[in-house]
Amino acid sequence: MKVLIVFAHPEPKSFNGAMFQTAIATLKAAGHDVQYSDLYAMKFDPVSDRRNFISTKDSEYFKQQMEELYATEMGSFAPEIETEMQKLEWCDLMIWQFPLWWFSVPAILKGWVDRVFAMGRAYDREHIYETGRFRGKQAMLSLTVGGSKEAYLDGGFNGDISAILRPIQRGMLQFTGFDVLAPYIVYAPVRQTDAVRQSILDDFSQRLQTITSELPIAVGQY
Amino acid sequence: MKVLIVFAHPEPKSFNGAMFQTAIATLKAAGHDVQYSDLYAMKFDPVSDRRNFISTKDSEYFKQQMEELYATEMGSFAPEIETEMQKLEWCDLMIWQFPLWWFSVPAILKGWVDRVFAMGRAYDREHIYETGRFRGKQAMLSLTVGGSKEAYLDGGFNGDISAILRPIQRGMLQFTGFDVLAPYIVYAPVRQTDAVRQSILDDFSQRLQTITSELPIAVGQY
Repeated sequence: MKVLIVFAHPEPKSFNGAMFQTAIATLKAAGHDVQYSDLYAMKFDPVSDRRNFISTKDSEYFKQQMEELYATEMGSFAPEIETEMQKLEWCDLMIWQFPLWWFSVPAILKGWVDRVFAMGRAYDREHIYETGRFRGKQAMLSLTVGGSKEAYLDGGFNGDISAILRPIQRGMLQFTGFDVLAPYIVYAPVRQTDAVRQSILDDFSQRLQTITSELPIAVGQY
Repeated sequence: MKVLIVFAHPEPKSFNGAMFQTAIATLKAAGHDVQYSDLYAMKFDPVSDRRNFISTKDSEYFKQQMEELYATEMGSFAPEIETEMQKLEWCDLMIWQFPLWWFSVPAILKGWVDRVFAMGRAYDREHIYETGRFRGKQAMLSLTVGGSKEAYLDGGFNGDISAILRPIQRGMLQFTGFDVLAPYIVYAPVRQTDAVRQSILDDFSQRLQTITSELPIAVGQY
């Protein structure tokens, strides 16, 4: 299977970094083809505007979707965007490894979506959700959160983690046709002992070894 | 009243740009003090890492919250972050004007939060939600979305817009103590006539003229 891992954390030695490395090693050992985008290491620029394109459809008024449609037709996305698009199109499974910041993905990952999931190329009016361009592909969020599990239950401090992840799982992944696998969520790794952290990495590795047999989850409406 | 408007759209001539200008003009005419952050015009960098600081607590291992606590103590945030923090601390009302991209804010605005809402300065373990640092301040989301209103109802195509906005309203605004006013949502402005768009701007202006008398909304748990 072809797996794309997108990693968004500024510290390679972080627990997120360890999860990223565990995923690469485990999936390669299981015989899968692995590509990754280490967004901080790449110094990926998350700001979406005319820099996404080497072409210009309308120099007077910037309408991003119109420029995206034009660039799709002309093959004129900026090279760093084209590269990411090809990884996205190549993969059978995409994993995002990130810390939950402010109930969402870090800006560097949000901007990867803003720029790479371009109209024409990643979706259009006829190709969203059940008819999405990336139908047949699977995606999984793998994340760390700062709080305890109790804080992220329905009625808890922050509310149900499923509701917090819904804009990502529904609005980014399912929107473009991905089937969503159950997220892998690590609560407050910073408050765990090294031994517990290692056991989490082992558990994560175990899960990835059989991930090809997993079925997608339902992402609720809320 | 002191009002901070944060604007995140790459095209000043867009409908979002018109809403931003309408807000500035209306609030000034009503006698309020207005500051704004036009993130694209400022070329705001949304990537959060060591660039947030002019100090270093630990040069071996980057733990953002620890560096934030240290920079709070030392007064050593990077100048562009310090400036934004002071605007945030100054305001009584904050308005975010943005297009909903991928069920969330554009990356440039997400990164403004990632970098400016620093631990120690904007919150800490004892100061979140009801005890938040920004208690007594109000915040309002003002946004455009691409789809029709029907697509954003409970059971609709994309699901309830309130659920989509919850991670922002709960996880960013209420988390730091802001009271949340009802969002101002414009559906598919691109598909409206100029006359309808003007009537929306007039309606928006009307609302802003009496915004000081508004009461906060409840942001559901979902």
